[in-house]
Amino acid sequence: MAEAVLAWTLFLHRDMPAYARQQAERRWQPLAYTPPEARTVSLLGLGELGQHAAQVLRRERFKVCGWSRSRKHIEGVESFAGEKGLFEMLAGTDVLVCLLPLTEHTQGLVSHRVLQVLPDDAALINFSRGPIVDDAALLQALDTVRLKHAVLDVFDREPLSAESPFWSHPRVTVLPHVSGPTDVESAAAIVADNIRNFRHTGHVPEGVDFRRGY
Amino acid sequence: MAEAVLAWTLFLHRDMPAYARQQAERRWQPLAYTPPEARTVSLLGLGELGQHAAQVLRRERFKVCGWSRSRKHIEGVESFAGEKGLFEMLAGTDVLVCLLPLTEHTQGLVSHRVLQVLPDDAALINFSRGPIVDDAALLQALDTVRLKHAVLDVFDREPLSAESPFWSHPRVTVLPHVSGPTDVESAAAIVADNIRNFRHTGHVPEGVDFRRGY
Repeated sequence: MAEAVLAWTLFLHRDMPAYARQQAERRWQPLAYTPPEARTVSLLGLGELGQHAAQVLRRERFKVCGWSRSRKHIEGVESFAGEKGLFEMLAGTDVLVCLLPLTEHTQGLVSHRVLQVLPDDAALINFSRGPIVDDAALLQALDTVRLKHAVLDVFDREPLSAESPFWSHPRVTVLPHVSGPTDVESAAAIVADNIRNFRHTGHVPEGVDFRRGY
Repeated sequence: MAEAVLAWTLFLHRDMPAYARQQAERRWQPLAYTPPEARTVSLLGLGELGQHAAQVLRRERFKVCGWSRSRKHIEGVESFAGEKGLFEMLAGTDVLVCLLPLTEHTQGLVSHRVLQVLPDDAALINFSRGPIVDDAALLQALDTVRLKHAVLDVFDREPLSAESPFWSHPRVTVLPHVSGPTDVESAAAIVADNIRNFRHTGHVPEGVDFRRGY
């Protein structure tokens, strides 16, 4: 998952969507380069996935912010919490990456208001769950060219319906839920480790907390 | 430049060209994921640029090979030299990245023979100079679907002519010579350092060796 965050952040950072459009028009036009130190990638969600993504982005020299239920202390990451913190973070965001679990609190969180607070030419990556983003608000933000591009890997209903306007939108990348592939070998290794650990210590690994909803 | 190597290696590694084609066809089809440990990226050229690219690729867990005039000892990089070494390296390559300087020895180096030795579904990135790749041989390798994709940032003549078959080739990404952007701030800092150094020590920094040709 951290690799996908890095890969599609670089896709946006190196203007791959714009270069693809220019190629289709046979247009040779170098675009201004912005170094990663001058780009802020903001992560919605700073759990295990978010923290790993932050680390990978940091070592490629991006500025990283993160938002979570409670403020976290992670080296090199500016941490925000609460509604005030969210809007503070959004105002300085170039790439917003959604990694939040879907709960009653996160459904529709990426709303019209959230998308309007992002600076012009910001971009969105949704790698968590479709219902966290308000689709109508997203299309509006894209159509008014406030939002430069959206990379969407998750949708309210999957597979994405053939009628969805996202498929043909020139500033949307549609992916078929592939940002966090389960690698069979690594999954098997984790399960084996947990069983070994349980046999030695009787400890059951941390899992889903049904009260929090993830 | 190392960032560009990483960005377009991830572009190929995460199957972005295939997903873009599927999106155009409104097709929802997750493709099998291969972890970076199972991908070999081979660098033609292990000078400063190549060594930096190797380091960045290594930390994202790709297997890295490199080919240069003389064998290098770089941690985690399998080093090759000579014609025999070149063909040995090519046979195990998934992504071939050209970073060589253009000299009488490297012109046309990525030839029909070189492209035929690459395994099926390998990809090419050319970030150095156009004449190092034989364009006719490249088009043939792409059209016989032996080569999966080519990312070309440099061409025999630039800007690339509007008549070039590369613009509309479904398995070619054309970039307008942007892989190694000169960042004005960092370039100014390097020049300032060199002047400061010269004033203190009288030492002129290493530059182009006209006998080697780069």
